[in-house]
Amino acid sequence: MSSNSYGTLFRVTTWGESHGPAIGCVVDGTPPLLPLSEPDIQRWLDRRKPGTSRFTTQRKESDTVRILSGVLDGKTTGTPISLMIENEDARSRDYDEIKDKFRPGHADYAYWKKYGIRDHRGGGRSSARETASRVAAGAVARLILGDSVSIRGAVIQLGPHKIDRSRWDWTAVEDNPFWCPDRQAAQAWEGYLDGVRKAGSSCGAVIEVVAAGVPAGLGAPIYGKLDADIAGALMSINAVKGVEIGAGFGAASLSGEENADEMRMRDGEVAFLSNQAGGILGGISTGQEIVARFAVKPTSSILSARKTITKDGRDTEISTKGRHDPCVGIRATPVGEAMLACVLADHLLRHRAQCG
Amino acid sequence: MSSNSYGTLFRVTTWGESHGPAIGCVVDGTPPLLPLSEPDIQRWLDRRKPGTSRFTTQRKESDTVRILSGVLDGKTTGTPISLMIENEDARSRDYDEIKDKFRPGHADYAYWKKYGIRDHRGGGRSSARETASRVAAGAVARLILGDSVSIRGAVIQLGPHKIDRSRWDWTAVEDNPFWCPDRQAAQAWEGYLDGVRKAGSSCGAVIEVVAAGVPAGLGAPIYGKLDADIAGALMSINAVKGVEIGAGFGAASLSGEENADEMRMRDGEVAFLSNQAGGILGGISTGQEIVARFAVKPTSSILSARKTITKDGRDTEISTKGRHDPCVGIRATPVGEAMLACVLADHLLRHRAQCG
Amino acid sequence: MSSNSYGTLFRVTTWGESHGPAIGCVVDGTPPLLPLSEPDIQRWLDRRKPGTSRFTTQRKESDTVRILSGVLDGKTTGTPISLMIENEDARSRDYDEIKDKFRPGHADYAYWKKYGIRDHRGGGRSSARETASRVAAGAVARLILGDSVSIRGAVIQLGPHKIDRSRWDWTAVEDNPFWCPDRQAAQAWEGYLDGVRKAGSSCGAVIEVVAAGVPAGLGAPIYGKLDADIAGALMSINAVKGVEIGAGFGAASLSGEENADEMRMRDGEVAFLSNQAGGILGGISTGQEIVARFAVKPTSSILSARKTITKDGRDTEISTKGRHDPCVGIRATPVGEAMLACVLADHLLRHRAQCG
Amino acid sequence: MSSNSYGTLFRVTTWGESHGPAIGCVVDGTPPLLPLSEPDIQRWLDRRKPGTSRFTTQRKESDTVRILSGVLDGKTTGTPISLMIENEDARSRDYDEIKDKFRPGHADYAYWKKYGIRDHRGGGRSSARETASRVAAGAVARLILGDSVSIRGAVIQLGPHKIDRSRWDWTAVEDNPFWCPDRQAAQAWEGYLDGVRKAGSSCGAVIEVVAAGVPAGLGAPIYGKLDADIAGALMSINAVKGVEIGAGFGAASLSGEENADEMRMRDGEVAFLSNQAGGILGGISTGQEIVARFAVKPTSSILSARKTITKDGRDTEISTKGRHDPCVGIRATPVGEAMLACVLADHLLRHRAQCG
Repeated sequence: MSSNSYGTLFRVTTWGESHGPAIGCVVDGTPPLLPLSEPDIQRWLDRRKPGTSRFTTQRKESDTVRILSGVLDGKTTGTPISLMIENEDARSRDYDEIKDKFRPGHADYAYWKKYGIRDHRGGGRSSARETASRVAAGAVARLILGDSVSIRGAVIQLGPHKIDRSRWDWTAVEDNPFWCPDRQAAQAWEGYLDGVRKAGSSCGAVIEVVAAGVPAGLGAPIYGKLDADIAGALMSINAVKGVEIGAGFGAASLSGEENADEMRMRDGEVAFLSNQAGGILGGISTGQEIVARFAVKPTSSILSARKTITKDGRDTEISTKGRHDPCVGIRATPVGEAMLACVLADHLLRHRAQCG
Repeated sequence: MSSNSYGTLFRVTTWGESHGPAIGCVVDGTPPLLPLSEPDIQRWLDRRKPGTSRFTTQRKESDTVRILSGVLDGKTTGTPISLMIENEDARSRDYDEIKDKFRPGHADYAYWKKYGIRDHRGGGRSSARETASRVAAGAVARLILGDSVSIRGAVIQLGPHKIDRSRWDWTAVEDNPFWCPDRQAAQAWEGYLDGVRKAGSSCGAVIEVVAAGVPAGLGAPIYGKLDADIAGALMSINAVKGVEIGAGFGAASLSGEENADEMRMRDGEVAFLSNQAGGILGGISTGQEIVARFAVKPTSSILSARKTITKDGRDTEISTKGRHDPCVGIRATPVGEAMLACVLADHLLRHRAQCG
Repeated sequence: MSSNSYGTLFRVTTWGESHGPAIGCVVDGTPPLLPLSEPDIQRWLDRRKPGTSRFTTQRKESDTVRILSGVLDGKTTGTPISLMIENEDARSRDYDEIKDKFRPGHADYAYWKKYGIRDHRGGGRSSARETASRVAAGAVARLILGDSVSIRGAVIQLGPHKIDRSRWDWTAVEDNPFWCPDRQAAQAWEGYLDGVRKAGSSCGAVIEVVAAGVPAGLGAPIYGKLDADIAGALMSINAVKGVEIGAGFGAASLSGEENADEMRMRDGEVAFLSNQAGGILGGISTGQEIVARFAVKPTSSILSARKTITKDGRDTEISTKGRHDPCVGIRATPVGEAMLACVLADHLLRHRAQCG
Repeated sequence: MSSNSYGTLFRVTTWGESHGPAIGCVVDGTPPLLPLSEPDIQRWLDRRKPGTSRFTTQRKESDTVRILSGVLDGKTTGTPISLMIENEDARSRDYDEIKDKFRPGHADYAYWKKYGIRDHRGGGRSSARETASRVAAGAVARLILGDSVSIRGAVIQLGPHKIDRSRWDWTAVEDNPFWCPDRQAAQAWEGYLDGVRKAGSSCGAVIEVVAAGVPAGLGAPIYGKLDADIAGALMSINAVKGVEIGAGFGAASLSGEENADEMRMRDGEVAFLSNQAGGILGGISTGQEIVARFAVKPTSSILSARKTITKDGRDTEISTKGRHDPCVGIRATPVGEAMLACVLADHLLRHRAQCG
């Protein structure tokens, strides 16, 4: 019942604080004989790493991953894969002011109430830095899923500004600093986010992750539902406040006729005429694209002074300096992809166990 | 890794099909010496049971629960509590037509692809009837939480029609067939839902569940986050397509200043000046009210003919007769409460284990 | 982390007290489409049930099992299989005397210290009656393993009297009331056990369980070792005090040369020249017979008065009346077989998950 | 369901191969605010490390542990504690010969059958080197148990030579290279083991581990029994073939009268008049000393040539060079202590969760 592990058969345990010597994870349950080397993981980490544009934190971290176990001659051996990323640019001084104050919107107060102690330096364990381990684990998960499954993410809303879905273009996603699939929106977002950044403020985002090529049959009733596990996995990402599958909250406004995806045979294959379900029925994949969305709240670290209290119960104010993303939602995109990959890899193994 | 269990320390395993002899659950991990008898559970089951208004299925089920173990002289003994509810009004004939056809929006196709066999009678294991076991388990969970914690739910949107939150009145919730906290909305909904029902159609809903009195410190980083577990638990309820905590998807549109709940001391107590967080920061409860919402899709069983295919791959049509709720979201309200209670009870025990 | 469940993928949760209305279990994770009906389970229960000879308790229990879920038209559906056995001959009066006294050797004192409450009637949850659920689950486990795997048990020591292994004959096992594979020993044991029984005393036993036909590769380093799981499963049976695999404790006295089983090719197949390992190396099956033994202590319920204390801390004496097995080890034989079957079924699914 | 983790609330995940860059573990679930620094762990590792006498392997490993996370200012924070030990003296050349041959008694063949790949260098994952991680985790477990609980181990049989229990002296244990509590036996063992070592052979051992000061009430029926978890934990140690609790296998030969430990009040405290139970009844601790024993088989690496086969199915012979312990049982003593500590720490937290 480790609170720092996820997955059942494909099981990842992460460790490490933002300003400790390193962070890392142990990936257990990987099938043997999969080709794996450090660059296979590094390429995904590079998508999450900070400092790639003016819209992310200026902390300099190369996020270089080392494989410490579980791989021999470029192949997985079936034993646990230990991955480690050293922390390089931890300026703990920046955090002296917040040692005794709780930053509103952060986990400071909650950790302190729970444990009676908290590593205040850079958020300690609650720092989004932990998500690097998720992305590393997600790279292994993708190996298990194989080339027939593709998992991609895109930011579909930045602050209050949504994309126009009719302009969706996956090739655009890699071309702008926002993972935005709508080139026009991406351009507008630049100005918007520059304004937010210069004001020392922050904004939220909505990300959509899509898995194509997932075979029908993954997932399991009742409490091992694929969508329940996806919801839990995405909600476990820092700053996420909402998750939906397929039509999501919009499903409440649909009629029964609109909602239930009709089926037809097309060239001997089963075809659905719509995908309100987001690829999952009764907790089990149907073979359609799996579509999930999650909402990320604005970065809690902002420049303007905010009312708060001290550890010893006095009213005070705080403004967070440090180096922060004006919108953590952007860098959450590869994290969302990684979590979806992990859930699917786990369910692929679980399905194989029960149904052969 | 049972897919039919939830919770870690407070652990519930459910079993049973809609048209089998009975359904039930085994509740493990309950502390000893709690007062428990069948009426303590029955009162919650009565809130979920069918046939209480014209807006729910006309299937007649008394949903009478029996305690088969784990209780001695009206007190829990710490050993597993086995609860059983016999199925009384299972008209399997109604389902003959769907034996070989997949009902759109239902789990039929997905189960068949996964298992190669499915109990088609009343949805079998995927029937919402399973949720009675959840409500029964939730009654035990409430005992663990004690009287200082209250958990309540309300329907805040029926089809496209939202309540006016300024009219929120918890006492109204028990006075109308919709668990609606806005008396005016409840009245409007009657006409709306009558229309839906008479058209043989269906609609969705959004439910809000609120836990008050929850102490700070419950939950655990990183993958045992309280909100992640709530999201998974609510998403595991039949027909749920979205879950959010606090400001939820709306958080994406907030500024950093609006989002981060400020704090002040009030009469020696910590007070938050807002609750965008929904009572959870960094995956740990803060002592504020825990607020979660979930979206339920329209009932998939509708009268109008829908395109589908047969098990042997031919195009056909189907219209579902049986006896169905025009809006399953209504009866999902006590189920959502129960799931929230279970998650909180589990985390209460987990917190006590680690932090004493 | 249910303490009343075992297994990971093939997962069994048992419930029920000796003198409650019923006992039972929920078997989760069973592959679909296996042929299963009540007689398939009943035949194994009949081997464990009391009253079949003068050497077991005279309590009359038909141990009739009912399948309440998870099976359709004689086939498993992949959903949880709920099994229930009603208690028929519970004479709770017999236990009035022990309500306030702790029976030496029994779980009475330990339960009371843990829970502050105990169901004293017939041992409540700690009664060996619970093992009927294990045997029922074991019947399902055998289905998963298939006909190529055979699991058999035999009593190899009764009190201080060991069998002569050179006379081992599996056909003898079904011919005597002791599951003894040595006909000559079985005859001698009759007189011995009659003496024990008439003296109101009891004795222990050692049981050997053997699984043949298990493929190489089951089990998993490091903490999911096949032998570690077998040891835990057998030690969890009531009254078991020791477990060994292959040469077991005798391995300590072997030389390195004697201990390490040599290998040769025989007709294109791998052959081991001995089986000190008991079919398991590094926690993984080798394809040899899996051999485990467990020691059962004497029945704690005996007629002679024994020193004990009362719940309120006074010295007293107790002699247990009730109806008891003079040697619980005998009826533990089918239970040991069942546990071995459950562990192997679980590992078969786990191996399939990771290694395909 | 990680196979490389143990424990439920106090949960340890180990990783690493004998000849990889490092080994280590992640310890999750530790309560916050416990004083912890590297020397607290190092002192226990030093007891297990190789090269301390001529009776252990001459491989030079300082086994220096680093704490990478979970500790702030010398106190645990409640977040995962990552521990790493670098491998220093890995001579992989020594193992070239065995790349294609299976060493009898080793895990080579079983790993290869399971995974189709194996890290042959020094035994890879199946090397006893992994047990250093267990000892490190055990040091944290001891912190949780506190000073009132003491856990000690001793070798009570070396090869066929048993100690005389009447000469048991705990102070002797630290004075000889065998952790032997019988000074006279220890002296005799020197000559015996020198003979074994010079002959290039090996021998087994039996170790007894004793936990004093454990409160009554730890453990949980039915499958979370304290003795079942101890049995599984000890059997998971490399080369262990048997485990027993209290009277163990000897219990089979006791009469019911001898076996059931009588009770009396002594100065207002509960006193047992014997401890055949080994401190556990019904799977729950009674407050008596917890006594467990385990048998370790002879080291499988021996100098004399042994019959074996190659990966491609040819008969051959092998003699293992490398640097090996003539009796791995000796260094298994601190490992057994560590495993017992881990099981008890886990159950302490579990008990606190359920029973407060």
